Amino acid sequence: MTERITIALDVMGGDHGADVVLPAALRALSRHDELDLLLVGDREIIEAGLQRLRAADNKRISIQHASERVEMDEAASHALRFKKDSSMRVALNLVKEGRAQACVSAGNTGALMATARYVLKTLPGIDRPAICTSLPTMSGHTWMLDLGANVDSSPEHLFQFGLMGSVLAKAVDSNHNPRVGLLNIGEEEIKGNETVKEAATLLASGSMNYIGFVEGNDVYGGNVDVVVCDGFVGNIALKTSEGVARMISHFIKQSFNRNLFTRIAALFALPVLKAFRRQIDPRRYNGASLLGLRGTVIKSHGSADALAFANAIEVAAVVVRQQVPERISSQLQTILAERQAV
Amino acid sequence: MTERITIALDVMGGDHGADVVLPAALRALSRHDELDLLLVGDREIIEAGLQRLRAADNKRISIQHASERVEMDEAASHALRFKKDSSMRVALNLVKEGRAQACVSAGNTGALMATARYVLKTLPGIDRPAICTSLPTMSGHTWMLDLGANVDSSPEHLFQFGLMGSVLAKAVDSNHNPRVGLLNIGEEEIKGNETVKEAATLLASGSMNYIGFVEGNDVYGGNVDVVVCDGFVGNIALKTSEGVARMISHFIKQSFNRNLFTRIAALFALPVLKAFRRQIDPRRYNGASLLGLRGTVIKSHGSADALAFANAIEVAAVVVRQQVPERISSQLQTILAERQAV
Repeated sequence: MTERITIALDVMGGDHGADVVLPAALRALSRHDELDLLLVGDREIIEAGLQRLRAADNKRISIQHASERVEMDEAASHALRFKKDSSMRVALNLVKEGRAQACVSAGNTGALMATARYVLKTLPGIDRPAICTSLPTMSGHTWMLDLGANVDSSPEHLFQFGLMGSVLAKAVDSNHNPRVGLLNIGEEEIKGNETVKEAATLLASGSMNYIGFVEGNDVYGGNVDVVVCDGFVGNIALKTSEGVARMISHFIKQSFNRNLFTRIAALFALPVLKAFRRQIDPRRYNGASLLGLRGTVIKSHGSADALAFANAIEVAAVVVRQQVPERISSQLQTILAERQAV
Repeated sequence: MTERITIALDVMGGDHGADVVLPAALRALSRHDELDLLLVGDREIIEAGLQRLRAADNKRISIQHASERVEMDEAASHALRFKKDSSMRVALNLVKEGRAQACVSAGNTGALMATARYVLKTLPGIDRPAICTSLPTMSGHTWMLDLGANVDSSPEHLFQFGLMGSVLAKAVDSNHNPRVGLLNIGEEEIKGNETVKEAATLLASGSMNYIGFVEGNDVYGGNVDVVVCDGFVGNIALKTSEGVARMISHFIKQSFNRNLFTRIAALFALPVLKAFRRQIDPRRYNGASLLGLRGTVIKSHGSADALAFANAIEVAAVVVRQQVPERISSQLQTILAERQAV
């Protein structure tokens, strides 16, 4: 028998709040029998929403009232100090209290990071959590971290990202020996800045499968399973990628819309292009892990739709089932003990 | 009457050497009447190559013999110290001596940067040159710098990149007021690392049209003309973009190749997809400027074909015609004088 998993959802977070989170919740429940959901937010809104979706008496759903909401543009410090009854904070409290095993939120990233860190605390040996997501590649997917939680990461931070990403890839993909690469501007030892050079030494000395430097074009090439980088660099690489994909899709649409001939061609090409788009559909990759916390927290894209948010719930379920925080913690303890022994 | 322009080409540089540079030279000559070319490299190879291309007696071509060649994986310091008669070095010397107004090379970036800096020197007030190229956007193109010459750029460096990029955009695009954006991980003032914050203050205090922070997805969005960033970040953003574009093109091919129906669809879609590919053809964007030197140096992609290398020659001609180094220098002098006056 599969063990039951309870996940707390921040219903009020994100651009669309309950309109997206409630249908996503039902979608996830219908696909995962072992799942129970705790919906956190304004009870009236949630009850009315469930009524509309004919799910008011779903036994696998409970409601936890929260009277406030963190705004998408609210400063993290403001949310932390003044929104003690926000849906985000209450959902994290449920994880802290053990009533839920994970929390999923599409809310403001900065506030989620700060509040999660305050409520749940980081694992011993981890200075700051990192944001990690999977990205499509030519031959599957790769994990990349950090994506914006940390700027000016130290070599030790980059080492910790490698360790955490490696544990995540092992757990989620059943990949016994994930290849960990360090993002740099050249494969030769001489290139890169000082931080990257020192991080390379640390990563090479660890027990993970460190394959050396990788360049920007390797992220999508399929030859590395975990890409380690500073959050500033990672965030810019990720958003630049989104920008290129959007531009290409814009040009494809434009090209097929040019004249009568191209519009006829489009009729033939459309089903094929649709199949292609599914392969790189960002919704299928929605759900970034905040790694390094004493608990599982998954960040959904703020503008996620129900399909995308349901995907983030599924990511949370996998991370819980695979005991990712516990495995990160135990790996870290081993390394810290080894270092002390030297 | 248009003034004549002489450009020195490093014939031995790049992955393909004379096989690419010679046809590219003829292509550029046929399209630009005001152009003369100085072909630098092994005289025998060049003469034989021109013979094969039936261009041995082209009056607008001269040959300058150079007995050595910088290898693509050679350390910059090694090339600088031991390859004093390399085609790259001799081509740069021709610019220094005023016999050519620009040099175009597809050789090793590190060696070209180091040798150009040594031979030509930087403009007064510029600490290190920056690499700048144009990239396609939804509505035209944008200039981005630095793309890898500088890691750990200081706020003052980022300011200089903004100034140089702004001059280049003005000169090449006849854009009187190019919008300069600083690459960051959020548009709010609070985000980003310390360097970026200080650079923002410097850029805002200058006379250029500084529009504030831009994010990774803005690079291809068409809402900024010059994107300023550290070379580590810029190189990774550029190569990640290349990786995404390659992956998308791989998936499109795969989708159209799946079965009989998709192959028939491909027959209709192919001309459209070809037209679309031309829009983002990296060859059309080949030719990065090494800005901040006392002379014009253009770096071609190492794997460039003749069309792409010819494009880099054309970039060199425009930069020379528009007197970009002179304009950067005069803008810099004004700013340095203003700062002293304060």
